[in-house]
Amino acid sequence: MKVSIISGGAGFVGSNLIKYLQAEGRHVFVIDNMCRGSSSFLGVNSGVDDSLISILNADCTDQAILYDFFDSARNVGHVDEVWHLAANSDIPAGIADANVDLKDTFMTTFTLLEAMKLFKVGTINFASSSAIYGDFGGLPIHEEIGPLLPISNYGAMKLASEALISAATESHLERANIFRFPNVVGVPATHGVILDFIGRLVVEPELLTVLGDGSQQKAYLHVSDLISAMLLVRSQKMLKKIELVNIGPIDEGITVRSIAQLVIERVSPAAMIKFGEGNKGWLGDVSKFSYSTKRLQSYGWLPTLDSRGAVIRAVDEIALQLGQ
Amino acid sequence: MKVSIISGGAGFVGSNLIKYLQAEGRHVFVIDNMCRGSSSFLGVNSGVDDSLISILNADCTDQAILYDFFDSARNVGHVDEVWHLAANSDIPAGIADANVDLKDTFMTTFTLLEAMKLFKVGTINFASSSAIYGDFGGLPIHEEIGPLLPISNYGAMKLASEALISAATESHLERANIFRFPNVVGVPATHGVILDFIGRLVVEPELLTVLGDGSQQKAYLHVSDLISAMLLVRSQKMLKKIELVNIGPIDEGITVRSIAQLVIERVSPAAMIKFGEGNKGWLGDVSKFSYSTKRLQSYGWLPTLDSRGAVIRAVDEIALQLGQ
Repeated sequence: MKVSIISGGAGFVGSNLIKYLQAEGRHVFVIDNMCRGSSSFLGVNSGVDDSLISILNADCTDQAILYDFFDSARNVGHVDEVWHLAANSDIPAGIADANVDLKDTFMTTFTLLEAMKLFKVGTINFASSSAIYGDFGGLPIHEEIGPLLPISNYGAMKLASEALISAATESHLERANIFRFPNVVGVPATHGVILDFIGRLVVEPELLTVLGDGSQQKAYLHVSDLISAMLLVRSQKMLKKIELVNIGPIDEGITVRSIAQLVIERVSPAAMIKFGEGNKGWLGDVSKFSYSTKRLQSYGWLPTLDSRGAVIRAVDEIALQLGQ
Repeated sequence: MKVSIISGGAGFVGSNLIKYLQAEGRHVFVIDNMCRGSSSFLGVNSGVDDSLISILNADCTDQAILYDFFDSARNVGHVDEVWHLAANSDIPAGIADANVDLKDTFMTTFTLLEAMKLFKVGTINFASSSAIYGDFGGLPIHEEIGPLLPISNYGAMKLASEALISAATESHLERANIFRFPNVVGVPATHGVILDFIGRLVVEPELLTVLGDGSQQKAYLHVSDLISAMLLVRSQKMLKKIELVNIGPIDEGITVRSIAQLVIERVSPAAMIKFGEGNKGWLGDVSKFSYSTKRLQSYGWLPTLDSRGAVIRAVDEIALQLGQ
């Protein structure tokens, strides 16, 4: 039996991914410190087959625990891949305290690569981020643009992780799929603008206060499309050991103002929206961003939902998640 | 009085730099773990004024010690810049054990940036490396080329450091000069091909064994030219907070075969040279490398020595250093 190890596998993306890996006949080993993830995400309704999953509540930066975990996985079958999804996902928290992204975003990569070297696991699928690029002021951002000047510690530690993975393909890795994620929406939501907006309206149904003037525009992808893209890239035979791919919709995105309106329509139609000033939401947030996904499209992939469609679906899903 | 802090300041580059900073009227605070550096490098013959220097033998990844060190420096004058030169410089060692570059190349950057944030030091001058680029197969490598896929942990941790510095300019740094070093030669030599060759000939004067077939070609810069380039860039008024600059000669470099011949001529004219196979010296070594220094030249900088001239001068200097 083939075995996949997933760091951060009980989080938002992992809990959506697992059933597809199990459908390939794989046993899935999840290590997650449950800081945002939850075993409940892997429960009855998630489509996860509990006979083909092993879950460890632990931090994968603890090397001794991680090695034991790899050893357990090896006893179940042939461990041929790691999905490295563990990371801090709270960008402002990482700016306030650089140790957060150091530990959760970078050292997770470091210890996983060390374990992969020791246990001879050949393939890594890595959740990188569009945040590695920094601010190109609206220029189309393709995979080979430079210079790479991230503006948040989150983006910096994702780029640092890519760099380590790149070096590892020169020594012990056989293949690295580096997926540069866009903003991804869906359930189980653990963070992000939609969850934030709905959460605020639950507390204060009459008023939604928005950071910035609402003109900030971003592309959003539904988690179901994200996973179809990753699985497609992973299934390709490649000449290169490293595949870097931007994942995202092909439209130009949706404004914060539109998201706020869609949330209100669904959750609290009578609410007022109060905007702030400026078009940057917070430190470390890039204001305008044009994300090229031509490479991904060259594999024949197209999203089923554009940014607006993804947000509409996710607003409904997250509202239900919050009992609205 | 203005104060400069130099991590790794007792090493090869630092010991050449200090007298220029002192000539600006600066007091220099050196922190160095003396793993390759040495206080003797800062002695009488180095041109260093010992009334304008304070040296701490310690590891700058020890945060408590580093903060005390910054505090001491602050008591002497206005600390307005850090030169971050501390790093592992043994690329193969970092491939064998990833912890070496993690600690010496990356965590030094992390702790220094944390100290700079706390002590409000605005400028960092960072010794990055051409190793961040990886292998472009002979294409001209300019500062905005991509993708960045380093092939050694050394290159990965230098790129990771750049990424962190980039994020820090968004929050607390006022200016970052990121110098992407070429191969640099001169004295006091602590590592590198010339020291290696001369050292072997001292042991075995009749035979010089060379890794690879000798066809590998690299550009070399003399340390005196490296320092003139850094000081010129540092003196420019910039609109951007980050300046990324490749530093190197403007020629295409010199082959390992030619270096071996120059070493033999100077040190042991009767010796034979025995070449190996292939044109890669070791894992993590890029075989052909064309390094664009147009940006640096746009500031009016030119090297005084080309690659061959730099090697000839360094061979003589290093031979003298080794008593030859």
